[in-house]
Amino acid sequence: LKDAAAMPIDLPREPDFAKAGGLVPAIAQDADNGDVLMMAWMNAEAFAETLATNRAVYFSRSRGKLWRKGEESGHVQTVVGIFVDCDADTVLLKVRQAGAACHEGYRSCFFRQITTTDTQVVGERLVDPAEAYRKKP
Amino acid sequence: LKDAAAMPIDLPREPDFAKAGGLVPAIAQDADNGDVLMMAWMNAEAFAETLATNRAVYFSRSRGKLWRKGEESGHVQTVVGIFVDCDADTVLLKVRQAGAACHEGYRSCFFRQITTTDTQVVGERLVDPAEAYRKKP
Repeated sequence: LKDAAAMPIDLPREPDFAKAGGLVPAIAQDADNGDVLMMAWMNAEAFAETLATNRAVYFSRSRGKLWRKGEESGHVQTVVGIFVDCDADTVLLKVRQAGAACHEGYRSCFFRQITTTDTQVVGERLVDPAEAYRKKP
Repeated sequence: LKDAAAMPIDLPREPDFAKAGGLVPAIAQDADNGDVLMMAWMNAEAFAETLATNRAVYFSRSRGKLWRKGEESGHVQTVVGIFVDCDADTVLLKVRQAGAACHEGYRSCFFRQITTTDTQVVGERLVDPAEAYRKKP
């Protein structure tokens, strides 16, 4: 093994999108209570806009375009810290979440716990998703 | 839009590996202080072993095999809760981390913060990685 302790720590200015094939996972964590709220994806453009605006912007793989979190629901994420992991291929955002992070109306997307015996809903449902995404007149 | 509020919530017994192409992201979070420690990948076998043993097991994409976290370093993760997100394609583990989660010797892999002006190391380096992974006699 190389002497990793002696290796300098890189200080990248953005994730290594090229190595990751263009998209990296981005985890959003509640900056206040530490809850993990959701995981989505970022391309270089989403990352740059997030950094510049302090609003979480992801890349929607299903829609094939930038996803400015909360643009429909109002459930925006104000970014208070951006972190990158050791391999520079995963992003962690610490955010202040307006309303519910999850499109199902739960505060966190991780509202179901799996045990050896069963799966239960353990999360807090804040809003009626049908209401949150209803088209405004 | 469909009336999502009226839709029943599925209670899956495992992530939807088929939809995800066989591997899903798995986030490990410190069960005590809420720190996000790392992100890795799980296949169905890694998930099943994690659930059965309460030890975090991932799938190493670079080595192409199961990765029982801590098998070399001793930095095992005891799992105290397993959660799945709304799309059933991301896992959240709440864990008790022995030593450092990161192979660089930091407690969390997310030890670098990126701002508009610079990138800084903000994490806590617990162990010398060269020491942690040195072959035992």
